This record gives sequence, structure tokens and C-alpha cells, in this order.
Amino acid sequence: MTVNGRTEGRQGRRRRVPRQEREQQIIDVAVTVFAKRGYHAASVDEIAELAGISKPMVYLYLDSKEGLFLACLRREADRLVAAFQGAARAGGGAPELRLHAGLSAFFAFVAEHRDSWIVLHRQASELSEAIASAVADARRAVMAQVAGLVWDGIAESEGGTQLDDEDADFVAHALVGAADSLTDWMSGHPGQSPEGVTLRLMNMVWVGMGRVLEGEVWVPSPE
Amino acid sequence: MTVNGRTEGRQGRRRRVPRQEREQQIIDVAVTVFAKRGYHAASVDEIAELAGISKPMVYLYLDSKEGLFLACLRREADRLVAAFQGAARAGGGAPELRLHAGLSAFFAFVAEHRDSWIVLHRQASELSEAIASAVADARRAVMAQVAGLVWDGIAESEGGTQLDDEDADFVAHALVGAADSLTDWMSGHPGQSPEGVTLRLMNMVWVGMGRVLEGEVWVPSPE
Repeated sequence: MTVNGRTEGRQGRRRRVPRQEREQQIIDVAVTVFAKRGYHAASVDEIAELAGISKPMVYLYLDSKEGLFLACLRREADRLVAAFQGAARAGGGAPELRLHAGLSAFFAFVAEHRDSWIVLHRQASELSEAIASAVADARRAVMAQVAGLVWDGIAESEGGTQLDDEDADFVAHALVGAADSLTDWMSGHPGQSPEGVTLRLMNMVWVGMGRVLEGEVWVPSPE
Repeated sequence: MTVNGRTEGRQGRRRRVPRQEREQQIIDVAVTVFAKRGYHAASVDEIAELAGISKPMVYLYLDSKEGLFLACLRREADRLVAAFQGAARAGGGAPELRLHAGLSAFFAFVAEHRDSWIVLHRQASELSEAIASAVADARRAVMAQVAGLVWDGIAESEGGTQLDDEDADFVAHALVGAADSLTDWMSGHPGQSPEGVTLRLMNMVWVGMGRVLEGEVWVPSPE
């Protein structure tokens, strides 16, 4: 504290970092620490030390340990949704190409940002209501993106009128759940590229949906 | 305490409940309380009171709050796996009929045992390593069941030789993840029966896999 105060007192010796930039630095460190130690074991002391900032400053900027975790969660969720959305928009005109591009960006994000994924996926339940609702918001944002693409796919298909937006929402839930679970499979198969995982999933789900759109129905009757 | 001691002292007034039966009663209550309050907010006092047993007895039987949660987790996971396995075995000869029966039992279990599902699915991350590893064990047991059925389906199909047990494991991860996620969809659509959810999922995944088995491959080329 004293050292910081003194150093910052001498003008120009230490660059004044804008608040927003400083916050991002703290969040960068916090994501790593929360991913490594888990929410309860993580300490604000360690985060402050690794970020090179005093603990009271961390509290000043981000309010509390919970506030810090919420900031991590929101930023990483925004990044994940932006990665999906950006890739899906750039993916081409047909819904399945956009879905493919979005899923591919999702698996690439998870492979590159293990810590973000651990914070988003593994540690969010069983914490406070504020955290649970931030997670639910993030999941709804992803679900809406995916359901929109599936709905476009249904609308553009010839048999489209048979299926409605409830079906699109169902397929989106199945796809998002499958993608979440496949991140575990992917970490157990380090030789598999995110793109390979995406292609397998597209083949399983999109091809299956195509057949359903054509009117094929599976019913449990013995052959 | 005193009342309990005195009552038990007068022979025959209160039936002596065997330890195992008493443990199951405590676990019944604990599942409800953990589901309602969450792990951290749940109190052993409340569990003891609702189970009609003294707090020291709860500790004697189940060691600690963590031990109590682990006992809940293990029992509910065993029940869920048994429900899937029993239905799958009774489901008929063809792998897709067994898979259908197993999935149907899964969705019925989740619909009937909301508290079990909340304990198993929502509250297990971000707790101790012992709890995380109990959850991982349960998930592996479910995954092995599903992968086995998928593998049987691949082996019995004509194009079976193209796909291997890595593919079966991939499909199992996708299916289990989709099923987990669809439990949320199901609670948002109370009019949908577990059987209806099962049929939609079978249509999406199994029909899709059938086409892949026949050699159809989706690749992201513009039309």
C-alpha cells in the first residue's frame, strides 16, 4: 500500500492504468486462479498478488469475491457467445453452414481457453443465486443462437411446415447439451481436432434432422 | 436428546430401527433438503430434525455433512443407473429398442425424482474432490451403458466396420449430454411426457446415426 502510494505519487514513474484496463487484468488473473483452485479455495489475496495490485483495490474495482467471479463469468460467457455468433455470421448463407461454423468456433474456443470453460461449465452451480442466474443468462444466449439457426434450417427445408419453433428449441437443447458433454470427450482425446469433433456432431445431428424433416419417423416397434 | 433417550429406554415403546433402514431414512430427508437449499445452505440440524433423529446420530451414521451428501449422491446415481440398465435389458433384442427403453426410463426417473436430479446434476461441481470424483464415477457408469448399446448398434449394422468404439464413445457422450440438457427443456414444457422427449431424441440421434452408418457424410461445402 505504502509503496504503491509512494510510487504513484511520483508523477510519471509508473504509468496510470485506466480503470477498465486494470479490471481486465484482474479478471485475466482471476479466471486462471478460479479455474485452478475452484471458487471456494481461491483467495482474493492470491489474485491481487498475481495481478500486481493491492487487495483493497481489487475490492474497490470488483466489490467482492463473488463480484469478481461474476465478472469472470460474464466476460467469458460474452466471449464464447461472440465467438459462436461471429463465426456463424461469417459461415455462409445456408443454416447448416452457419451452424457448422458456430460449433467449430465453440470447440476451438473451449480447446484454447480451458480456464474459461472450467469457470463457465464446472464451477457455476451450487454457488449464489446471482451466479446461477448469470449462468442461466449465458446459456439462454447460446441456446437462442443455436435455436435460430435450427429454425432457419427447418424453415428452408421442404418439409418445414411439419416442425415448429418448439422443435427448434428441442434440437437446440440437444445440440448444446451434446456440445457441452463432448468437451469432456475432446479432452480425453487430445489427438482429435475441434474441427473433427464438429464434423462428427454435425453428421450425427444435422443428418439425422434432415431425415426427420423428410418425414421419416422412428417408432419403437420390434422388427 | 433426553426425550429420545428416555423413550428408547422404555423397552418396546419405540421400535428399534435397524441401522441400514435408519440411514436410508436420513438420506431420503437429506436429498430433499440438499435439493431445496443447496449444499452450502443446507444444515445437518434441519436434516436431523426432519428425519426425527438427533444430530450426533446423523454424524455417527454418515460421518459429516460431506459424507451425507456423498451418500445421497451415490444412492441416487445407483438408482438412476439401475433404472436405465433395467429398462434397457427388458427393452428387447435390437440395440435401438434397448436404447429407447433406457432413455425412456431416464426421462421418467428425472420427471419423477426432481430432487434426485437436482442433487446429481446441479450441485455436484465446485464441491470437494471426493464429491467430484463420485459424480465422475456415476457419469462414467451411465456413459458405459450407453456406449455399449451404441456399439451393439454399430456392430449389428451393415456398415458397422467403418465405425469403431471411439465413435461409439463419441455418440454416447453426445447422447448423454443431450439427455442432460433436455431435462431442462422438459421442465420448461410440462405438457411433454418423458416418452415424447425420448421419441424426439431417438429420432434425431438414432435416425441420424443410421444414415451415417449407411455411408452418408456431411461436409461443409456451399451448395
